[in-house]
Amino acid sequence: MSKLPDINKNFAEWYQEVIHQAELVDHSPVRGTMVVRPYGTAIWENIKKRVDHRIKETGHHNAMFPLFIPESFLKKEADHVKGFAPELAIVTHAGGKKLEDPLVVRPTSETIIHYMFARWIKSWRDLPLKINQWANVVRWEMRPRAFLRTTEFFWQEGHTAHETYEEAKKEANLMLQEYIDFAHDYLAVPVISGTKSEAERFPGADETLTFEAIMPDGKALQMGTSHLISQNFAHAFDMSFQNKEEKLEYPHLTSWGVTTRLVGALIMVHGDQKGLVLPPKIAPIQVVIIPILKKGADNEKVLQAAEKIAQDLKVRSVRVFVDKDDHKTPGAKFYHWELRGVPIRIEIGPRDLENKQVMLAIRIEKGKEEVLFNSLVDHTVSALDNIQKELFKRAQEKVKTLWHKEEKLASFGKKMEKNGGLYQTGWCLAPACEQELKKYKASTRCLLDEKTFDVCFHCDQPSKTDVLVAKSY
Amino acid sequence: MSKLPDINKNFAEWYQEVIHQAELVDHSPVRGTMVVRPYGTAIWENIKKRVDHRIKETGHHNAMFPLFIPESFLKKEADHVKGFAPELAIVTHAGGKKLEDPLVVRPTSETIIHYMFARWIKSWRDLPLKINQWANVVRWEMRPRAFLRTTEFFWQEGHTAHETYEEAKKEANLMLQEYIDFAHDYLAVPVISGTKSEAERFPGADETLTFEAIMPDGKALQMGTSHLISQNFAHAFDMSFQNKEEKLEYPHLTSWGVTTRLVGALIMVHGDQKGLVLPPKIAPIQVVIIPILKKGADNEKVLQAAEKIAQDLKVRSVRVFVDKDDHKTPGAKFYHWELRGVPIRIEIGPRDLENKQVMLAIRIEKGKEEVLFNSLVDHTVSALDNIQKELFKRAQEKVKTLWHKEEKLASFGKKMEKNGGLYQTGWCLAPACEQELKKYKASTRCLLDEKTFDVCFHCDQPSKTDVLVAKSY
Repeated sequence: MSKLPDINKNFAEWYQEVIHQAELVDHSPVRGTMVVRPYGTAIWENIKKRVDHRIKETGHHNAMFPLFIPESFLKKEADHVKGFAPELAIVTHAGGKKLEDPLVVRPTSETIIHYMFARWIKSWRDLPLKINQWANVVRWEMRPRAFLRTTEFFWQEGHTAHETYEEAKKEANLMLQEYIDFAHDYLAVPVISGTKSEAERFPGADETLTFEAIMPDGKALQMGTSHLISQNFAHAFDMSFQNKEEKLEYPHLTSWGVTTRLVGALIMVHGDQKGLVLPPKIAPIQVVIIPILKKGADNEKVLQAAEKIAQDLKVRSVRVFVDKDDHKTPGAKFYHWELRGVPIRIEIGPRDLENKQVMLAIRIEKGKEEVLFNSLVDHTVSALDNIQKELFKRAQEKVKTLWHKEEKLASFGKKMEKNGGLYQTGWCLAPACEQELKKYKASTRCLLDEKTFDVCFHCDQPSKTDVLVAKSY
Repeated sequence: MSKLPDINKNFAEWYQEVIHQAELVDHSPVRGTMVVRPYGTAIWENIKKRVDHRIKETGHHNAMFPLFIPESFLKKEADHVKGFAPELAIVTHAGGKKLEDPLVVRPTSETIIHYMFARWIKSWRDLPLKINQWANVVRWEMRPRAFLRTTEFFWQEGHTAHETYEEAKKEANLMLQEYIDFAHDYLAVPVISGTKSEAERFPGADETLTFEAIMPDGKALQMGTSHLISQNFAHAFDMSFQNKEEKLEYPHLTSWGVTTRLVGALIMVHGDQKGLVLPPKIAPIQVVIIPILKKGADNEKVLQAAEKIAQDLKVRSVRVFVDKDDHKTPGAKFYHWELRGVPIRIEIGPRDLENKQVMLAIRIEKGKEEVLFNSLVDHTVSALDNIQKELFKRAQEKVKTLWHKEEKLASFGKKMEKNGGLYQTGWCLAPACEQELKKYKASTRCLLDEKTFDVCFHCDQPSKTDVLVAKSY
């Protein structure tokens, strides 16, 4: 295990190293894909569990649709196929034969789900129809990066149909808000939300809502999106229903999703020079207990005390692990679990046992403290709570240092290109001005519901809205 | 909604109809695949949750491996590629280009997981390595049947590596037993277990353990398998480790899995002429409450009472749904929920409210009973428990009527071909005798750990073991 690259100087290398050394992922023999190891999978499962809960609580039902989609389906909506065609993986042979109609490995499931919706929706009584799917999807990637951008990734995709535009809009907003709450409450990642520009929209959507986080290297990361899908999709799939007045209408659709990218986000936002830092609510192991065994001491008693503490913590729903490996020194274990970002470490040795205490170390603080047995469980539970809050606070402060308000691209463009950062500025909404950002390797991230500037960041036309611009992942 | 086909006369048609009418699945536009609707997905999620719990409790960790496998990987183990080649779906084009090395959509993941195992296993300290994956897999199907045999299906595949043959064998047996316990305790499906014959083994396994259930039409259904994988796989992927004596050795491997087929099994075993019958432990909805609304009555009070009962049941962890749909008659609702196999129905109307009681109907019993409010929750909880046990008992009795012991294929072959049924008989283990079963469209299902017969079912050689033979799904 070699030292991690300098997080301040070589952030990208630090990221690649930390996810491998902490055994979240390994290199896959299939270009662009990832092998997610048990520790990485456990983080994703915790995310899934919480997001799934929110999806169900808001009245959606999970379903499972086929991995393969007929190529002809994608062609039914012009913008959609144009957007996805370059990224598709195509099955041309199966069962020992050449297929007459090639099958696409789903890059997203709008087309096949809308095909089914058209069969299920006949009357206004069938609406709203609110479906979610947890699935793997494939988009061929030229520059893959584990969790952030991979050929195969894992996600949930919600798909809903509604009687009115207003209802669909409300749904798209609601799910965006659920995502934001989840990012804040569980991932402790502060996010910014707003509308995507026309150029940055989902292929085939009327409106794309996005929530974005700013990474420590000053680049923005799109965390997830919620789309108001164009009625074109309903037309393309002949999805109509009889409304209350017994007239035929086309439903209004939404789709929304978050992916394994969330794992990448929380690693980047919280990690430090020692490795991962996991927010307690998402950490697969919240507390690691390390028995300090010594020659000649009553090690059996120490082990028993460690197990007892673990049991007491489990009763309070704390995810705890006792590291009893007798081939490693305590120091090696400290290093191992710090690298993996476990929020709290408890050490207990023969002398601690005599004093009815433990040594407790918090991953994001220096030093350690003595805690008496009789207050240990309460102390640990409230420490986990505090760590969760502290991580969010620190991340919010970091965002402040990376968020700038500037009027003219000409004055901030080069700084942004060199140092990153999120720039709030004014925009006339003209695509030509948006294009100018490319010169600095940046793009619009989201339109804000604010108007601070009088003129556009590029031209001299009046600004119509504030916009956030940044380089992005 | 048309009447279900006669379950006794047209079992196959009954099955196809019931899974569609109860909205478990729908026809997919992609041949051989299925669209699993919310109700079917909820059953699978309940199965997943319990099986995942057992897998984790026995010390396995979930991980996620790529969907695509290089074609060359499958060719590394001769039997394996021979077994799967005819069923593969192959990606030849991706990202707008023809791939130099075509990719196979995983039919199972031994090859790619073993490739990674070879990187992770260096010393005996890395063993045992116990991994599980929940995934979709693809095997091209000529005669697809929802849940039972589909081109894409969902499963878990466990993969483990051990220092010794004995340990691996113990693991394969342990996971088989976990499956059997799950089938009995949760699905209420009685199963028979044993070893597969050489011809029926997993391609590349030294030994395949199987558990099978007998369906009401007399055909056997393989519910899941647990394999002792040949060390050939370890050799093929150069997976070696330094043992405690510092010598290089090849680990001993297992793999084991259950699939969405379990949903098919429980539908077939428990269903009746009215539709599905779901064991309470797996039922997405265990109790449906139907408020009986009447013109001129105080319907608001009835609805409130229904909600109150639902809340009280939820506190006791009962999964309950109040059907408030005001477009349907109570009769239509009874039919709707019977078809969907909900174990208990509670009806409450204005007069019931006056009498502080409800009418309670049990899906697998005739008639209904009055139950007073003050005993309702306890009564319901214990009724659910009784239904679970009763379903298992009824299924066991059914198995008895379908299980026969006979000495000679010549005498039972035609009966078996015509009526189905499970035949326990003696076998000399010669493949030639096993081949004879094909004449009656049957096969060996599993070798039993018993020896009841002196001679082989076909030839005059001594029997070496009892074997179960049957027609199968």
